[in-house]
Amino acid sequence: MGEQLTIALDAMGGDHGPQVIVPAALNFLRATQGIRLILVGKPDVLAPLIKDQNFQGRLMIHPASQEVAMDELPSKALRLKKDSSMRVAIDLVKSGEAHACVSAGNTGALMAIARFVLKMLPLVDRPAIITAVPSLTGSTHVLDLGANVDCTAAHLFQFAVMGSELARAIGGLDSPKVGLLNIGAEEIKGNEQVKQAHELLARSALNYVGYVEGDDIYLGDVDVVVTDGFVGNVALKSSEGVAKLVRQMLQHNFQRNWFTRLSGLAALPILKRFSRTFDPRRYNGASLLGLRGIVIKSHGGADVLAFENAIHIAEKEIHYNIPKRIAQQVQSQLDAERQRAEV
Amino acid sequence: MGEQLTIALDAMGGDHGPQVIVPAALNFLRATQGIRLILVGKPDVLAPLIKDQNFQGRLMIHPASQEVAMDELPSKALRLKKDSSMRVAIDLVKSGEAHACVSAGNTGALMAIARFVLKMLPLVDRPAIITAVPSLTGSTHVLDLGANVDCTAAHLFQFAVMGSELARAIGGLDSPKVGLLNIGAEEIKGNEQVKQAHELLARSALNYVGYVEGDDIYLGDVDVVVTDGFVGNVALKSSEGVAKLVRQMLQHNFQRNWFTRLSGLAALPILKRFSRTFDPRRYNGASLLGLRGIVIKSHGGADVLAFENAIHIAEKEIHYNIPKRIAQQVQSQLDAERQRAEV
Repeated sequence: MGEQLTIALDAMGGDHGPQVIVPAALNFLRATQGIRLILVGKPDVLAPLIKDQNFQGRLMIHPASQEVAMDELPSKALRLKKDSSMRVAIDLVKSGEAHACVSAGNTGALMAIARFVLKMLPLVDRPAIITAVPSLTGSTHVLDLGANVDCTAAHLFQFAVMGSELARAIGGLDSPKVGLLNIGAEEIKGNEQVKQAHELLARSALNYVGYVEGDDIYLGDVDVVVTDGFVGNVALKSSEGVAKLVRQMLQHNFQRNWFTRLSGLAALPILKRFSRTFDPRRYNGASLLGLRGIVIKSHGGADVLAFENAIHIAEKEIHYNIPKRIAQQVQSQLDAERQRAEV
Repeated sequence: MGEQLTIALDAMGGDHGPQVIVPAALNFLRATQGIRLILVGKPDVLAPLIKDQNFQGRLMIHPASQEVAMDELPSKALRLKKDSSMRVAIDLVKSGEAHACVSAGNTGALMAIARFVLKMLPLVDRPAIITAVPSLTGSTHVLDLGANVDCTAAHLFQFAVMGSELARAIGGLDSPKVGLLNIGAEEIKGNEQVKQAHELLARSALNYVGYVEGDDIYLGDVDVVVTDGFVGNVALKSSEGVAKLVRQMLQHNFQRNWFTRLSGLAALPILKRFSRTFDPRRYNGASLLGLRGIVIKSHGGADVLAFENAIHIAEKEIHYNIPKRIAQQVQSQLDAERQRAEV
């Protein structure tokens, strides 16, 4: 591995492919120093988009002849697409040529390939997808977001350990507050896995604050919200839906007649600022945690700004050496759990 | 049962009890004709709030000496609170003295007592909680919202039949579009119950449009969204959280300095209108479906306007005779399913 920090980009992935990913890469290189990007994909497609820019050797193309389709079965992608841009980007992380990779491609395929190529960290059963969302006081990390549909209490516990460590490193929090998503604060509510995970967490050394409900994700009282992938995915997608509804209703209300248009004009700077703060693109970039390497998943429909943000998240995770920190944390939590069991 | 339509209100329930429920009842009586309300609770508390208003006999007090606490165990409430305002209000529906009841009390206790007293409709295994939420094109009915944590495919199918019938009656839709909540439109995704429910729904006579995701709740492409109680509850609560976050961020942005305050002033009528359209109070009032009687659950923290809205929902369900329509619909769907199985 060279001294220079390197991020591999699956340049063919996502709804818009190189049309978005190459400009995002160029913007990232202009805004940062010292980090190198490898665009993985078809050179004849990528080269014309870069022209002769190479940023003093900080931009490279690594050829890959195949692409993983957005609706391709993960098992098929794993078996048949060994020279896909997604697979090769992950291979570069495995070989040490890159310190992280970013893909806007098919989530299921990315999970399957990353898990197969990079392998899990010791004592972690499954990867989890985590992202930060805005809250009243800053942001909240939520996991899992769709990697795991059926989870045991032990899985939820591992998610809590991983999420807490990420929030500690990236968010700079000494002792992130961890909540377990449930449908009421009462101990009688929830399904069996959640109740058992609650017991495990209550005994752990994590800063566990107990059950939280869906709205707590956004209220800023907790730093990490743990749930299974089905519930987490629905919670985030529902939130996106509401945000979209609110935006459209605001627009509609400001455009009803000349008076409202005028008022809208006056309010434009504030509404713009509001949109900026709440812009989902600024939160683009979810991490696959629990792997022996850094893999960042961008939203498939990401635009240039959003994809650039996902590259910044990869950069941060390299900086904090997230996989190593998580491995240590999982080890120490499980050691503590074992000691408690022996006492 | 008298000729006059009658709704029983659990006047002691909710976070604010009679302070909210009595004024809501008075407003409802002023705004409507022909419907009678029974306030169930402690006469010495209720009487002073009504003074001598009786709206030509349309307002009555029915005594109940006990109250169900908001955090009381449902099993305890069922066993020990036989003269609670909640129980007596449901008893009035059972005896036919009221055509529906509304409570802002403890959801678990309301479910348990309603199920015990009123019993389930034939062929329906469990009650489900349903509510309407705003969407880009009108509103969407979502169920279940927390009555059932672990659901089988058969339960989800029953929810779909009940939700579709409610949307048809209340929403006036010929053939409501029903979607099953999942974490991706692909058939490979989701857990076992969801996949099996998908098969049942695809074969049914319902207007089933297939899997939908969290954001579809708000996009207006579907009229009914079916899911289990855990997921539904989290989806709705998350949405509430986002809406609250958006409101606070907008306010904050308009109050930063004198210029933004001025712009805010100009935009005030539009923002007010927006708040009104999006006001969660206007959507207050969830129905417990599948019972042999109409039971409406108001949000515990409902204010006067919100509780009044819940009474209006009870009125609508009486008008459309929802329990009878659901019983017929469940019967005919299951007959059709049996015929298909025999062919």
